[in-house]
Amino acid sequence: MRLTRQSNYAMRILMYCAANDGRLSRIPEIASAYTVSELFLFKILQPLVEAGLVETVRGRNGGVRLGRPAEQINLFDVVRVTEESFAMAECFENDATECPLVDSCALNSALREALNAFFAVLMRHSIADLVQQKSSMRGLLGIPPVSEQPALAG
Amino acid sequence: MRLTRQSNYAMRILMYCAANDGRLSRIPEIASAYTVSELFLFKILQPLVEAGLVETVRGRNGGVRLGRPAEQINLFDVVRVTEESFAMAECFENDATECPLVDSCALNSALREALNAFFAVLMRHSIADLVQQKSSMRGLLGIPPVSEQPALAG
Repeated sequence: MRLTRQSNYAMRILMYCAANDGRLSRIPEIASAYTVSELFLFKILQPLVEAGLVETVRGRNGGVRLGRPAEQINLFDVVRVTEESFAMAECFENDATECPLVDSCALNSALREALNAFFAVLMRHSIADLVQQKSSMRGLLGIPPVSEQPALAG
Repeated sequence: MRLTRQSNYAMRILMYCAANDGRLSRIPEIASAYTVSELFLFKILQPLVEAGLVETVRGRNGGVRLGRPAEQINLFDVVRVTEESFAMAECFENDATECPLVDSCALNSALREALNAFFAVLMRHSIADLVQQKSSMRGLLGIPPVSEQPALAG
Protein backbone atom coordinates (compact mmCIF):
# COMPACT_ATOMS: atom_id res chain seq x y z
CA MET A 1 0.00 0.00 0.00
CA ARG A 2 1.48 3.31 -1.01
CA LEU A 3 0.50 6.70 -2.35
CA THR A 4 1.06 7.35 -6.04
CA ARG A 5 4.17 9.20 -7.16
CA GLN A 6 1.78 11.94 -8.29
CA SER A 7 0.51 12.46 -4.75
CA ASN A 8 3.99 12.47 -3.36
CA TYR A 9 5.25 15.14 -5.74
CA ALA A 10 2.02 17.14 -5.60
CA MET A 11 2.59 17.57 -1.87
CA ARG A 12 6.19 18.55 -2.47
CA ILE A 13 5.28 21.10 -5.13
CA LEU A 14 2.83 22.69 -2.71
CA MET A 15 5.51 22.69 0.00
CA TYR A 16 7.91 24.39 -2.42
CA CYS A 17 5.33 27.07 -3.24
CA ALA A 18 4.54 27.58 0.44
CA ALA A 19 8.24 27.95 1.26
CA ASN A 20 8.43 30.56 -1.49
CA ASP A 21 5.92 32.62 0.48
CA GLY A 22 3.47 33.80 -2.17
CA ARG A 23 6.12 34.49 -4.80
CA LEU A 24 5.94 32.76 -8.14
CA SER A 25 7.95 29.54 -8.33
CA ARG A 26 9.38 28.56 -11.69
CA ILE A 27 8.83 25.04 -12.99
CA PRO A 28 12.48 24.49 -13.98
CA GLU A 29 13.57 25.42 -10.46
CA ILE A 30 11.06 23.09 -8.80
CA ALA A 31 12.04 20.29 -11.20
CA SER A 32 15.69 20.86 -10.45
CA ALA A 33 15.14 20.95 -6.68
CA TYR A 34 13.38 17.57 -6.72
CA THR A 35 15.38 16.04 -9.60
CA VAL A 36 12.34 15.27 -11.74
CA SER A 37 11.40 16.27 -15.29
CA GLU A 38 9.45 19.41 -16.06
CA LEU A 39 7.02 17.32 -18.09
CA PHE A 40 6.25 15.22 -15.02
CA LEU A 41 5.64 18.36 -12.97
CA PHE A 42 3.30 19.79 -15.62
CA LYS A 43 1.25 16.60 -15.53
CA ILE A 44 0.90 16.84 -11.77
CA LEU A 45 0.11 20.56 -11.86
CA GLN A 46 -2.87 20.20 -14.16
CA PRO A 47 -5.28 18.59 -11.65
CA LEU A 48 -3.92 20.83 -8.87
CA VAL A 49 -4.76 23.91 -10.95
CA GLU A 50 -8.21 22.54 -11.79
CA ALA A 51 -8.86 21.97 -8.08
CA GLY A 52 -7.76 25.51 -7.24
CA LEU A 53 -4.85 24.37 -5.08
CA VAL A 54 -2.34 26.05 -7.38
CA GLU A 55 -2.52 28.92 -9.82
CA THR A 56 -0.24 29.54 -12.75
CA VAL A 57 0.96 32.80 -14.28
CA ARG A 58 2.13 32.56 -17.87
CA GLY A 59 4.93 34.44 -19.51
CA ARG A 60 8.62 35.10 -19.12
CA ASN A 61 8.30 35.97 -15.43
CA GLY A 62 5.55 33.38 -14.92
CA GLY A 63 5.39 30.45 -12.59
CA VAL A 64 3.15 28.81 -10.05
CA ARG A 65 1.97 29.70 -6.57
CA LEU A 66 -0.61 28.38 -4.11
CA GLY A 67 -4.23 28.99 -5.08
CA ARG A 68 -5.14 29.76 -1.48
CA PRO A 69 -3.25 30.25 1.77
CA ALA A 70 -1.11 27.26 2.83
CA GLU A 71 -3.10 27.12 6.10
CA GLN A 72 -6.20 26.35 4.04
CA ILE A 73 -4.78 23.41 2.10
CA ASN A 74 -4.61 20.12 3.98
CA LEU A 75 -3.09 16.85 2.84
CA PHE A 76 -6.47 15.28 2.22
CA ASP A 77 -7.28 18.13 -0.21
CA VAL A 78 -4.22 16.99 -2.13
CA VAL A 79 -4.67 13.21 -2.21
CA ARG A 80 -8.33 13.45 -3.16
CA VAL A 81 -7.14 15.21 -6.32
CA THR A 82 -4.06 13.14 -7.08
CA GLU A 83 -4.99 9.57 -6.09
CA GLU A 84 -6.83 7.70 -8.80
CA SER A 85 -8.74 5.48 -6.46
CA PHE A 86 -9.29 4.76 -2.80
CA ALA A 87 -10.85 1.41 -3.54
CA MET A 88 -9.03 -0.56 -0.85
CA ALA A 89 -10.16 -3.80 -2.46
CA GLU A 90 -11.94 -4.69 -5.66
CA CYS A 91 -15.24 -5.02 -3.82
CA PHE A 92 -15.20 -1.25 -3.19
CA GLU A 93 -15.95 -0.79 -6.87
CA ASN A 94 -19.44 -1.46 -8.14
CA ASP A 95 -19.91 -4.67 -10.08
CA ALA A 96 -16.15 -5.26 -10.10
CA THR A 97 -16.19 -8.27 -7.86
CA GLU A 98 -17.52 -11.78 -7.95
CA CYS A 99 -17.11 -12.18 -4.22
CA PRO A 100 -20.26 -13.84 -2.86
CA LEU A 101 -19.97 -11.79 0.34
CA VAL A 102 -20.18 -8.44 -1.42
CA ASP A 103 -23.61 -7.47 -0.08
CA SER A 104 -22.97 -8.40 3.53
CA CYS A 105 -19.26 -7.99 4.08
CA ALA A 106 -17.88 -6.76 7.37
CA LEU A 107 -14.38 -6.67 5.85
CA ASN A 108 -15.44 -3.93 3.47
CA SER A 109 -16.71 -1.74 6.31
CA ALA A 110 -13.62 -2.41 8.47
CA LEU A 111 -11.37 -1.27 5.61
CA ARG A 112 -13.51 1.82 5.05
CA GLU A 113 -13.20 2.68 8.73
CA ALA A 114 -9.40 2.30 8.53
CA LEU A 115 -9.25 4.47 5.41
CA ASN A 116 -11.33 7.15 7.10
CA ALA A 117 -8.91 7.18 10.04
CA PHE A 118 -6.07 7.66 7.53
CA PHE A 119 -7.93 10.57 5.90
CA ALA A 120 -8.73 12.16 9.25
CA VAL A 121 -5.02 12.48 10.03
CA LEU A 122 -4.31 13.93 6.59
CA MET A 123 -7.03 16.53 7.18
CA ARG A 124 -5.31 17.63 10.38
CA HIS A 125 -2.06 18.52 8.55
CA SER A 126 -1.96 21.63 6.39
CA ILE A 127 0.72 22.55 3.88
CA ALA A 128 1.55 25.43 6.24
CA ASP A 129 2.30 22.91 9.01
CA LEU A 130 4.83 21.21 6.73
CA VAL A 131 6.85 24.34 6.00
CA GLN A 132 7.19 25.90 9.42
CA GLN A 133 10.97 26.17 9.01
CA LYS A 134 10.66 28.31 5.89
CA SER A 135 14.14 29.75 5.71
CA SER A 136 15.80 26.39 6.27
CA MET A 137 13.51 24.82 3.66
CA ARG A 138 14.30 27.58 1.19
CA GLY A 139 17.95 26.76 1.66
CA LEU A 140 17.45 23.01 1.17
CA LEU A 141 15.32 23.58 -1.92
CA GLY A 142 17.73 26.11 -3.40
CA ILE A 143 15.09 28.82 -3.56
CA PRO A 144 16.87 32.13 -4.26
CA PRO A 145 16.73 34.82 -1.54
CA VAL A 146 13.80 37.21 -1.94
CA SER A 147 16.11 40.09 -2.95
CA GLU A 148 17.21 38.17 -6.06
CA GLN A 149 13.68 37.37 -7.23
CA PRO A 150 11.43 39.40 -9.52
CA ALA A 151 8.75 41.46 -7.81
CA LEU A 152 5.52 39.71 -6.84
CA ALA A 153 3.38 39.23 -9.93
CA GLY A 154 -0.40 39.36 -10.14
CA MET B 1 -3.90 3.85 -2.76
CA ARG B 2 -5.17 0.34 -2.37
CA LEU B 3 -4.29 -2.93 -0.71
CA THR B 4 -2.76 -5.63 -2.87
CA ARG B 5 -4.96 -8.36 -4.30
CA GLN B 6 -2.97 -10.72 -2.05
CA SER B 7 -4.11 -8.89 1.09
CA ASN B 8 -7.68 -8.82 -0.07
CA TYR B 9 -7.84 -12.56 -0.73
CA ALA B 10 -5.76 -13.44 2.34
CA MET B 11 -8.46 -11.81 4.47
CA ARG B 12 -11.17 -13.65 2.58
CA ILE B 13 -9.42 -17.02 2.95
CA LEU B 14 -9.20 -16.44 6.70
CA MET B 15 -12.88 -15.47 6.77
CA TYR B 16 -13.73 -18.67 4.89
CA CYS B 17 -11.76 -20.76 7.39
CA ALA B 18 -13.36 -18.96 10.31
CA ALA B 19 -16.84 -19.52 8.89
CA ASN B 20 -15.95 -23.21 8.61
CA ASP B 21 -15.51 -23.26 12.36
CA GLY B 22 -12.30 -25.20 12.84
CA ARG B 23 -13.01 -27.78 10.16
CA LEU B 24 -10.59 -28.21 7.30
CA SER B 25 -11.43 -26.12 4.22
CA ARG B 26 -10.42 -27.51 0.84
CA ILE B 27 -8.54 -25.29 -1.57
CA PRO B 28 -10.75 -26.15 -4.58
CA GLU B 29 -13.82 -25.16 -2.58
CA ILE B 30 -12.31 -21.84 -1.45
CA ALA B 31 -11.14 -21.12 -5.00
CA SER B 32 -14.58 -21.90 -6.34
CA ALA B 33 -16.34 -19.74 -3.73
CA TYR B 34 -14.23 -16.69 -4.64
CA THR B 35 -13.85 -17.49 -8.37
CA VAL B 36 -10.05 -17.46 -8.33
CA SER B 37 -7.47 -20.05 -9.34
CA GLU B 38 -6.12 -22.62 -6.91
CA LEU B 39 -2.60 -21.58 -7.90
CA PHE B 40 -3.33 -18.01 -6.78
CA LEU B 41 -4.65 -19.27 -3.45
CA PHE B 42 -1.56 -21.43 -2.90
CA LYS B 43 0.66 -18.40 -3.45
CA ILE B 44 -1.28 -16.42 -0.86
CA LEU B 45 -1.36 -19.30 1.62
CA GLN B 46 2.41 -19.70 1.76
CA PRO B 47 3.19 -16.53 3.75
CA LEU B 48 0.06 -17.04 5.87
CA VAL B 49 1.30 -20.51 6.83
CA GLU B 50 4.79 -19.18 7.55
CA ALA B 51 3.30 -16.53 9.82
CA GLY B 52 1.22 -19.12 11.67
CA LEU B 53 -2.10 -17.57 10.64
CA VAL B 54 -3.11 -20.73 8.77
CA GLU B 55 -2.13 -24.36 9.03
CA THR B 56 -2.39 -26.97 6.32
CA VAL B 57 -3.13 -30.66 6.55
CA ARG B 58 -1.95 -32.72 3.60
CA GLY B 59 -3.62 -35.74 2.08
CA ARG B 60 -6.89 -36.78 0.54
CA ASN B 61 -8.94 -35.32 3.37
CA GLY B 62 -6.52 -32.43 3.84
CA GLY B 63 -7.11 -28.72 3.67
CA VAL B 64 -6.48 -25.53 5.58
CA ARG B 65 -7.72 -24.06 8.82
CA LEU B 66 -6.83 -21.11 11.03
CA GLY B 67 -3.53 -21.40 12.85
CA ARG B 68 -5.03 -19.84 15.97
CA PRO B 69 -8.52 -18.78 17.09
CA ALA B 70 -10.19 -16.22 14.82
CA GLU B 71 -10.47 -13.87 17.82
CA GLN B 72 -6.66 -13.78 17.95
CA ILE B 73 -6.08 -12.79 14.32
CA ASN B 74 -6.64 -9.14 13.52
CA LEU B 75 -6.52 -7.46 10.12
CA PHE B 76 -3.16 -5.87 10.84
CA ASP B 77 -1.71 -9.35 11.45
CA VAL B 78 -2.79 -10.13 7.90
CA VAL B 79 -1.62 -7.04 6.01
CA ARG B 80 1.78 -7.04 7.70
CA VAL B 81 2.28 -10.46 6.10
CA THR B 82 0.71 -9.82 2.70
CA GLU B 83 1.61 -6.23 1.84
CA GLU B 84 5.00 -5.86 0.24
CA SER B 85 5.62 -2.37 1.51
CA PHE B 86 4.08 0.37 3.57
CA ALA B 87 6.43 2.97 2.17
CA MET B 88 3.84 5.68 1.62
CA ALA B 89 6.32 7.60 -0.51
CA GLU B 90 9.74 6.90 -1.92
CA CYS B 91 11.37 8.86 0.88
CA PHE B 92 10.22 6.17 3.36
CA GLU B 93 12.84 3.90 1.87
CA ASN B 94 16.48 4.44 2.75
CA ASP B 95 18.58 6.03 0.06
CA ALA B 96 15.75 5.71 -2.45
CA THR B 97 15.10 9.39 -2.79
CA GLU B 98 16.91 12.43 -4.04
CA CYS B 99 14.51 14.76 -2.25
CA PRO B 100 16.57 17.50 -0.57
CA LEU B 101 14.07 17.59 2.32
CA VAL B 102 14.59 13.96 3.28
CA ASP B 103 16.32 14.61 6.57
CA SER B 104 13.93 17.23 7.85
CA CYS B 105 10.60 16.47 6.26
CA ALA B 106 7.36 17.06 8.12
CA LEU B 107 5.46 15.42 5.25
CA ASN B 108 7.11 12.10 5.97
CA SER B 109 6.05 12.17 9.62
CA ALA B 110 2.50 13.30 8.77
CA LEU B 111 2.12 10.34 6.41
CA ARG B 112 3.52 7.97 9.03
CA GLU B 113 0.98 9.27 11.52
CA ALA B 114 -1.84 8.71 9.00
CA LEU B 115 -0.61 5.19 8.28
CA ASN B 116 -0.47 4.40 12.00
CA ALA B 117 -4.09 5.54 12.35
CA PHE B 118 -4.98 3.16 9.50
CA PHE B 119 -3.17 0.28 11.22
CA ALA B 120 -4.77 1.05 14.59
CA VAL B 121 -8.23 0.49 13.10
CA LEU B 122 -7.11 -2.76 11.44
CA MET B 123 -5.82 -3.97 14.81
CA ARG B 124 -9.25 -3.42 16.35
CA HIS B 125 -10.95 -5.79 13.89
CA SER B 126 -10.43 -9.54 14.27
CA ILE B 127 -11.29 -12.22 11.75
CA ALA B 128 -13.89 -13.38 14.29
CA ASP B 129 -15.57 -9.95 14.10
CA LEU B 130 -15.91 -10.38 10.34
CA VAL B 131 -17.74 -13.71 10.49
CA GLN B 132 -20.30 -13.11 13.19
CA GLN B 133 -23.11 -14.31 10.93
CA LYS B 134 -21.51 -17.71 10.44
CA SER B 135 -24.48 -19.67 9.14
CA SER B 136 -25.43 -16.98 6.63
CA MET B 137 -21.77 -16.73 5.52
CA ARG B 138 -21.54 -20.49 5.12
CA GLY B 139 -24.55 -20.31 2.86
CA LEU B 140 -23.11 -17.47 0.77
CA LEU B 141 -19.75 -19.24 0.46
CA GLY B 142 -21.32 -22.57 -0.40
CA ILE B 143 -19.69 -24.31 2.55
CA PRO B 144 -21.37 -27.72 2.95
CA PRO B 145 -23.37 -28.32 6.15
CA VAL B 146 -21.30 -29.86 8.95
CA SER B 147 -23.15 -33.20 8.64
CA GLU B 148 -21.83 -33.62 5.09
CA GLN B 149 -18.19 -32.94 5.98
CA PRO B 150 -15.51 -35.41 7.08
CA ALA B 151 -14.84 -35.52 10.80
CA LEU B 152 -12.46 -32.95 12.27
CA ALA B 153 -8.88 -33.88 11.43
CA GLY B 154 -5.80 -33.33 13.55
